[in-house]
Amino acid sequence: MSLPRIAIDAMGGDEGVRVMVHGAALARRRHDKFSFLLVGDEARIKAALDDHPNMRAASEILHCDEVVAGDEKPSRAIRRAKTTSMGLAIAAVKSGDCGAAVSAGNTGALMAMGKLALRTMPGIDRPALAGLMPTLGDNDVVMLDLGANTDCDARNLVQFAVMGAAYSRIVTGKAAPRVRLLNIGTESIKGTDDLRDASQRLRDATGLAMQFDGFIEADKINRGEVDVVVTDGFSGNIALKAIEGSARFVTDLLRTAFTSSLRSKIGFLVSRPATELLKHHLDPNNHNGGVFLGLNGVIVKSHGSANAQGVANAVDVSARLLEDDITDRIAADLGEIGELSMRDKSVSQETAK
Amino acid sequence: MSLPRIAIDAMGGDEGVRVMVHGAALARRRHDKFSFLLVGDEARIKAALDDHPNMRAASEILHCDEVVAGDEKPSRAIRRAKTTSMGLAIAAVKSGDCGAAVSAGNTGALMAMGKLALRTMPGIDRPALAGLMPTLGDNDVVMLDLGANTDCDARNLVQFAVMGAAYSRIVTGKAAPRVRLLNIGTESIKGTDDLRDASQRLRDATGLAMQFDGFIEADKINRGEVDVVVTDGFSGNIALKAIEGSARFVTDLLRTAFTSSLRSKIGFLVSRPATELLKHHLDPNNHNGGVFLGLNGVIVKSHGSANAQGVANAVDVSARLLEDDITDRIAADLGEIGELSMRDKSVSQETAK
Repeated sequence: MSLPRIAIDAMGGDEGVRVMVHGAALARRRHDKFSFLLVGDEARIKAALDDHPNMRAASEILHCDEVVAGDEKPSRAIRRAKTTSMGLAIAAVKSGDCGAAVSAGNTGALMAMGKLALRTMPGIDRPALAGLMPTLGDNDVVMLDLGANTDCDARNLVQFAVMGAAYSRIVTGKAAPRVRLLNIGTESIKGTDDLRDASQRLRDATGLAMQFDGFIEADKINRGEVDVVVTDGFSGNIALKAIEGSARFVTDLLRTAFTSSLRSKIGFLVSRPATELLKHHLDPNNHNGGVFLGLNGVIVKSHGSANAQGVANAVDVSARLLEDDITDRIAADLGEIGELSMRDKSVSQETAK
Repeated sequence: MSLPRIAIDAMGGDEGVRVMVHGAALARRRHDKFSFLLVGDEARIKAALDDHPNMRAASEILHCDEVVAGDEKPSRAIRRAKTTSMGLAIAAVKSGDCGAAVSAGNTGALMAMGKLALRTMPGIDRPALAGLMPTLGDNDVVMLDLGANTDCDARNLVQFAVMGAAYSRIVTGKAAPRVRLLNIGTESIKGTDDLRDASQRLRDATGLAMQFDGFIEADKINRGEVDVVVTDGFSGNIALKAIEGSARFVTDLLRTAFTSSLRSKIGFLVSRPATELLKHHLDPNNHNGGVFLGLNGVIVKSHGSANAQGVANAVDVSARLLEDDITDRIAADLGEIGELSMRDKSVSQETAK
């Protein structure tokens, strides 16, 4: 077995064991070299595997009785790491038994447990949650942090840029993804001290496998003009949810408009292939799989309400990150800016005064 | 003349004098008690008025040669306040000659000049830029601050909530608009210290003409479940632009999808009334007119690329704010939380330590 196994927290998520196992089975069709550790209630996992013989052959089951609740406080979840499906999936990554863990459970608990068990990589102060979003261009855009860190300084943002670029290289195949910092204007005087500081550091850095283009405003995230959008977790979460909410708003309006008259209804039916394409493009399941970057191991968060196709995409993300060894890539890139990273520390502290 | 005049910076904006005058003329049909001071190049304003005799009768022209440039630094614009159309429009509000000024020019310059000339109201530390956005409900939602203040403390946020509620009462006619703070989760432990602090203060306050409901996430802004969304200028600008960009993204996808096959094209034509309704709902011209709240006078920013209908909406906003005397309303509400506001100061300072 040349590739590491993937641990699946079979119990997390709103949709239950069947969807997690079904999703993993779908992903395995695309990545047939991978095998799986399915963590959770053995009887239910076995029942779910009955529908997926190819998956059964590639899976081991690790039974446990307990599940982290959706509203459980991370501090409590951490204390139950040795008895919950989420905790045991992460522990399998820590021990080296698996290379990645995928969970559709409580995001805060997953982050807290992942950080505690796997620790951040050398050179990374804080892990970040990175996600993929659709664009008008050929590739999805990577955005990070999506909510793991409410406050970020310039040093954090520089590290996020390095991690996001490494992720984008795997997703897009580009040697030097276009990276920008999210800001409220593109002029160099805009935004906070930390943003301006991070921008200057990324401009000054040499040897980074990215093309750093300065700032980007939130209305340009989906235009396909950029591969990585870097931001603190507060703004990133606001931007992500504003984009999701606005897309839903427009499609809801559209649905109302299309069902308001017989003429519209006929038009809608005739043009169904077009609206199906739109639906496909906007379906969050097609962009499912938030990645905690910067840990010693890969942790992927699947959306709680994802369907089997959504789970398959999250497992697919973890498989691609393992195949391309994201952790080594980030470590190598951080080596390039080692000196810069050191210098950041003293400057950030000065800025904070 | 019982109602104050409205000063129009006829020179600002990408579309020029004709659009500003045309827009004001359209607005005047809805508010025929108002008269106008048109500030800018006299010859061009006169030429534009030839198409609008009703407007000509209600207008006075204040000639000036200079214009604030779109990319002019606010610090430079301030020094030219006495010779530019924007500066003179604001000066007319300061002198009491007009009650409001409308400009489609440089936002930063408008804010800086407005602040310097009109000063903030007693009890308000900083003015905020408030805008209206479409929702799935019956009313537009008021969001503030949209970018005037990058950093805001709890005290600023409480003041924004009071100002936003006063604005919403005028727009919606509701006695107690539903107000929430924008955050990355709705639990009381979420977000920054300042957000939690502001939330507690608004919960504790009594006698405010609003229904304060805690936090709201960015995907819920347009659902019609809230009348006022309060945020710092950084997050507000990110959210606003993310919503605009996402709406454009979806409609661009839709256009592509609808023109990708003959069948779709036919469907599109048949259902045109539906898509026209969508277009109308999303057209930024129908929600044009950002208001700087908290100054001793009304300053309304029209979008630089607004058409005549958009300018008319911005002028309409200024007329409604004058008719309902927004400044007095805010002052009265601030009186209600006078004690609270004082207490904020010491607590905010402690938090900052």
